[in-house]
Amino acid sequence: MTSPLRVLALSGSLRKSSYNSALLRAAQQLAPAGVTVELFDLRPIPMYDDDLRTGGWPEPVAQLRSAIAAADALLIGTPEYNYSLPAVLKNALDWASRAPDAPLAGKPAAIMSATLGNLGGIRAQVHLRQVLVGTGSLAVNRPEVAISRVQERFDASLALTDEPTRTLIAGLLVSLAAWTLQLRSHG
Amino acid sequence: MTSPLRVLALSGSLRKSSYNSALLRAAQQLAPAGVTVELFDLRPIPMYDDDLRTGGWPEPVAQLRSAIAAADALLIGTPEYNYSLPAVLKNALDWASRAPDAPLAGKPAAIMSATLGNLGGIRAQVHLRQVLVGTGSLAVNRPEVAISRVQERFDASLALTDEPTRTLIAGLLVSLAAWTLQLRSHG
Repeated sequence: MTSPLRVLALSGSLRKSSYNSALLRAAQQLAPAGVTVELFDLRPIPMYDDDLRTGGWPEPVAQLRSAIAAADALLIGTPEYNYSLPAVLKNALDWASRAPDAPLAGKPAAIMSATLGNLGGIRAQVHLRQVLVGTGSLAVNRPEVAISRVQERFDASLALTDEPTRTLIAGLLVSLAAWTLQLRSHG
Repeated sequence: MTSPLRVLALSGSLRKSSYNSALLRAAQQLAPAGVTVELFDLRPIPMYDDDLRTGGWPEPVAQLRSAIAAADALLIGTPEYNYSLPAVLKNALDWASRAPDAPLAGKPAAIMSATLGNLGGIRAQVHLRQVLVGTGSLAVNRPEVAISRVQERFDASLALTDEPTRTLIAGLLVSLAAWTLQLRSHG
C-alpha cells in the first residue's frame, strides 16, 4: 500500500455508551498498517427536509459531505431498530446522497452491526445494503460482521475484549482496504 | 359503523409542498362517513437517542405517542429516499415503538407512497412493511397505493384532481376502516 487509506466511520447510535460506537473506536485500534479510521459525530445533522436543502446545505451537512468526499472509504456501525436501520444513519446517508457531487456515489463502504440479542442486527444490514445501492456506494460483501450479545464482548470501560470479535473487525478492515484499492486501480 | 373512527396521518416528508402530505390532506376529504383523518406534524420530533429516552419522553414524542394511542388507526404517506423510507418517518415509528405501553403495538395501519418517477415508492413500502412488523402494527394488505408521477395528479394549489388516484385513496380508507373494525370485533 503506497499511500495511507482514510476511512470515515459513522455510527447509527447517538447513545453515549453505544456499543456500535465502541466497536468503531475498536476498529480505529484494529486497522491494518496504512489505514486510519476517523469517527464522524452525526448528532448535529438536522432531520432531512428538502426545503432546507434548497436553501443551501446546513453547516453540519456540508461538513459531513466534505468528510465523506475526503475519505477513501466508509465504515458503518449500526444497531437495529424495528427490523431496519436507525433514522440517524438513514438521515445522514440521505443528506450525503443528494446531487450535486454526491459524495456517496462510488464510495467503498463496509458494514458492521451489533445488538444485545442473538441476531446481531442482520435485518438492519439487509435494509442498509439496499440503501447503499440507492446511494451508489460500493459495500464489501465479506466478512459479514453482525455481532450478537454485544454487551458480553466488552469490559466495563467499553474496551472490546472478545478476541473473535477483534479478529472479525480486523478482517473487515483488511477486506475494505483491499476493496478500496481494487476499485481505485481499475477505476 | 356505530362510533366514529379516528385515523392519525403521518407524512414521511417535511417539505411544505410535499406531495405525500398533500395526499394525506386529500385523504381527509375522501374519508368515508364516520371516519375522520387528522394529520400529525412530525417536524418537532427529535432524532432518536436512547439517552434522551431514559431521561423521559421529550414533549413532542409524548404528544406523538398519545396521539397514536388515542387513534383507532394510522395512515402513513411516504416518499422513497434511497430505496427505503425517510428518516423522519422511521424516527417517529422508532420513538412510538418503545415500551412501556408502546402505542404502535396492535395498531391498524394503512400505507401510501408517492414519487415523481414511475415506481411510486414501492421499495420504501417494502421496508416500511417490515418496520411495521417490528413495531407490532397491523398494516392492511390491499389496495396497494403507490402513486407514480404524483406531480401530474394535482392542480397548482396542490389539490388532488386525478380521479383514479382519488378513488384509490378512498378505497384504502374503506379498507382501513373495515380492517380496524374487524380487529376490534375479534380482538
